[in-house]
Amino acid sequence: MTPRQARSHEAPAADSPTRPRVEGDREREILEATLDVLVEVGYDRLTLDAVATAAKASKATLYRRWNGKASLVVDALAHDKGPSPEPPDTGSLREDLRQAYCGLGGLASPRQTALFGSIITAITTDTEFAEAFREVVVGPKIATARVIWERAAARGEVSPDADLEVLEPALAGILMHRAHLIGQPPTPDLVTRVIDAVILPAARAAGTGTGTPTTTTDPKDPS
Amino acid sequence: MTPRQARSHEAPAADSPTRPRVEGDREREILEATLDVLVEVGYDRLTLDAVATAAKASKATLYRRWNGKASLVVDALAHDKGPSPEPPDTGSLREDLRQAYCGLGGLASPRQTALFGSIITAITTDTEFAEAFREVVVGPKIATARVIWERAAARGEVSPDADLEVLEPALAGILMHRAHLIGQPPTPDLVTRVIDAVILPAARAAGTGTGTPTTTTDPKDPS
Repeated sequence: MTPRQARSHEAPAADSPTRPRVEGDREREILEATLDVLVEVGYDRLTLDAVATAAKASKATLYRRWNGKASLVVDALAHDKGPSPEPPDTGSLREDLRQAYCGLGGLASPRQTALFGSIITAITTDTEFAEAFREVVVGPKIATARVIWERAAARGEVSPDADLEVLEPALAGILMHRAHLIGQPPTPDLVTRVIDAVILPAARAAGTGTGTPTTTTDPKDPS
Repeated sequence: MTPRQARSHEAPAADSPTRPRVEGDREREILEATLDVLVEVGYDRLTLDAVATAAKASKATLYRRWNGKASLVVDALAHDKGPSPEPPDTGSLREDLRQAYCGLGGLASPRQTALFGSIITAITTDTEFAEAFREVVVGPKIATARVIWERAAARGEVSPDADLEVLEPALAGILMHRAHLIGQPPTPDLVTRVIDAVILPAARAAGTGTGTPTTTTDPKDPS
C-alpha cells in the first residue's frame, strides 16, 4: 500500500500520479467513506473527523496516508472514477469517441452531480485541491482524448488545420454543460449526435480563412 | 415592485419570467445580500434568516416577496446577470458570437466559480430550484443564442443540415468546461479560437453521411 503524501511544488510526492496506485482494503474503505461524506455535506463542510467516523478509522490513520483534506478528496475522486481504461482503438475517430464517451454513464446521476458541484466549489476555495484535481482527475481524461485524436490524425481523419487543444476536450464540455445546466443526461444517442454535429465537422474542417491567428497559449493546459 | 411568487406547475406565477421585472431599491439590497450569503456559505447552508440578517430585513419582508429559498436564490442569480442584453446583430455569425461570448467576463472569477459550484449543488438537491434556474437563468441565454443562430441561418451562413439544438449551447459548454475543469479563463482570444476551430466548421458542415439519424428529442429543451 502506497500512502499518498502532499503534492506540492516544493516537495514532489514520491507517489507520482503516473505510477499505478495500490489500494489496500482499508484505504478503499476510507476513500469510499470520503465520497459518502462529500456527497452528503459537500467539500466545504467535509472534515477529516467526519471521514474518520464514517470509516471507523482514527484521524491518525488518515493523516498517515494523506496530508489533508485536498489530497484525501482528490484520491477519493480518482478512486471513484477507477483506473483510466485503455483508450478505445477501433480504427475510427467516430467510434473511438462514442466508446470513450457513451460510457460516461453516471455523469447526470444525482450523486455525480453532487460530487461535481462540490468539486467546482472546492476548485475556488482551495488552490491545492484545484491543482491536484486537475492533475489527477482531469489530466488522465485529457490524456485519453489525446491518444484518440492522435491516432485519428495519424489515420488522416483530422485536418492538419484542426486545433486539437480546443477540440480534444470539446465533447466533454458540451456534454457536461447539457447534463448540468440544461438538464439533459448524456445518453448514447446524444453523445453520437454531438459527435456527428459538432466534433467530426470541426475535425475535418480546413482553416477558416478568417485571417485570425490562433496563437493563444495556455500555461495551465496539461499538454 | 413586483414580488415574485412560487413557480410551480400547479399554480403558475402571475409574475412570469418573460415579463420585465421591476426591482425596487429594497429588493435589490436583499438580492445582493442573498448573493453575498450564497458565495460565503453555498446554497445548502443558505437560510432566509442569514439573508434577512445580511440585508437588515425581517424574515416577514422576505416571505412577502419570495415563497422560499429556491425562488429567492434564482432571483438573486438573475439579478446578478442583469437583464439579458439584446443579441448582437453585426451581420456575421462569427462576430455575433464573439460579441455575445467575449463579454462572458466574470465566468472564471472566484466569485462566479463559487456561485456556479453552489448552483450545481443546488440543482441536485432541489428540484424546484433546478426548474426555476433553467427557466430564469439558462433559458434567456439559450434564447439569445437561438436569435443569433436563426439570423445566421437566414443569411445562409448555416448549413441546412446543421443540428442547431446541439450547436446553439455548444460554445458556452466548451468555454465553461475549460474555465472550471481545465482552469483556463475564457479570454476573447480563446473564445475566438473556439468559434473558429469548432463552432463555425460545424455550422457550415453538410450531413456527416454516417447514416445515423439524429432523432433524439428532449422534452426538457426549452425550445
